Amino acid sequence: METLTGFNLTDAIAVLTRTPATIDALLRGLPGSWVRSNEGKDTWSAFDIVGHLISGERTDWMPRVLRILESGEACPFDPFDRFAQFKETQGKSLEQLLDEFARLRKENLAALQALNLQPEDLTRRGKHPALGVVTLSELLATWAVHDLTHLHQLSRVMAHQYRDAVGPWSVFLGVLQCNGHSTP
Amino acid sequence: METLTGFNLTDAIAVLTRTPATIDALLRGLPGSWVRSNEGKDTWSAFDIVGHLISGERTDWMPRVLRILESGEACPFDPFDRFAQFKETQGKSLEQLLDEFARLRKENLAALQALNLQPEDLTRRGKHPALGVVTLSELLATWAVHDLTHLHQLSRVMAHQYRDAVGPWSVFLGVLQCNGHSTP
Repeated sequence: METLTGFNLTDAIAVLTRTPATIDALLRGLPGSWVRSNEGKDTWSAFDIVGHLISGERTDWMPRVLRILESGEACPFDPFDRFAQFKETQGKSLEQLLDEFARLRKENLAALQALNLQPEDLTRRGKHPALGVVTLSELLATWAVHDLTHLHQLSRVMAHQYRDAVGPWSVFLGVLQCNGHSTP
Repeated sequence: METLTGFNLTDAIAVLTRTPATIDALLRGLPGSWVRSNEGKDTWSAFDIVGHLISGERTDWMPRVLRILESGEACPFDPFDRFAQFKETQGKSLEQLLDEFARLRKENLAALQALNLQPEDLTRRGKHPALGVVTLSELLATWAVHDLTHLHQLSRVMAHQYRDAVGPWSVFLGVLQCNGHSTP
């Protein structure tokens, strides 16, 4: 077994770069019933999840990177509105959201790379409004794992639609046992 | 909220068609440390998971479809070797596995569509060696959800590599709370 021995900017960017195409391949052109179905009251559909990823690109990740570099711990991050997508995506199609997410991610990664961060920058500290002191490398690792959390959620929300259709096989299908820990 | 009202062959094929490109977009060209890392002893890496999906294409899904159509409940399915990939993938690269999975899935979906299954065919019954009587529609739904289970697992295995790197954010990242129910 190989292991990642810790955070590495190149490795994190490798994941961040691939997320838009991954989600596009999974969702674009799917029947609306897959895309608009959720797991019940107050849960998110695939459409809502893509909207949430767009919100993150607009208001969360790069603004927080810049806040750390500009202000350190002196000025806490603005809170992230986890429900902004319900207003922002109204009237849009899934295809529009996928295009928007891909464009924003590309712009944000270009901005990140233009910062030419050095290893010592990754230890710089900022202040999260709920979690307290965090480092730049923790923020960047979280950006990548946040993508993976929502890929995890997407697979679960889609599988949920076939929870009855699989009949007795449900006991062998791990995704159907997932208890929704990844909704946020 | 919209819901899928039950199994539909077109909907299932829509998911099955997209899985190879989804996993390709997620994994191709990633640093080996992402692809070869697992969650600890006796767990699977991304490389192992793609190998397992290939095994399913070769020996599980379409052979079971044909077994139902040819023999009904009279002849149970052959058991599926969930560990075949550890031998079959030796010496191969991830890129070879991704190409092989895409090719086999394409061939299998062409074979499935050539069967020109009618709604009444979907209720035909077969016999699973452990689960007992199952229907053709349950088998086909399971094929799609099995893809989603392994996408769920892939996101979890990758996120696991950054479980320490995210620092205090781990409490907010659902994928890091997933207890591995989807390993099989």
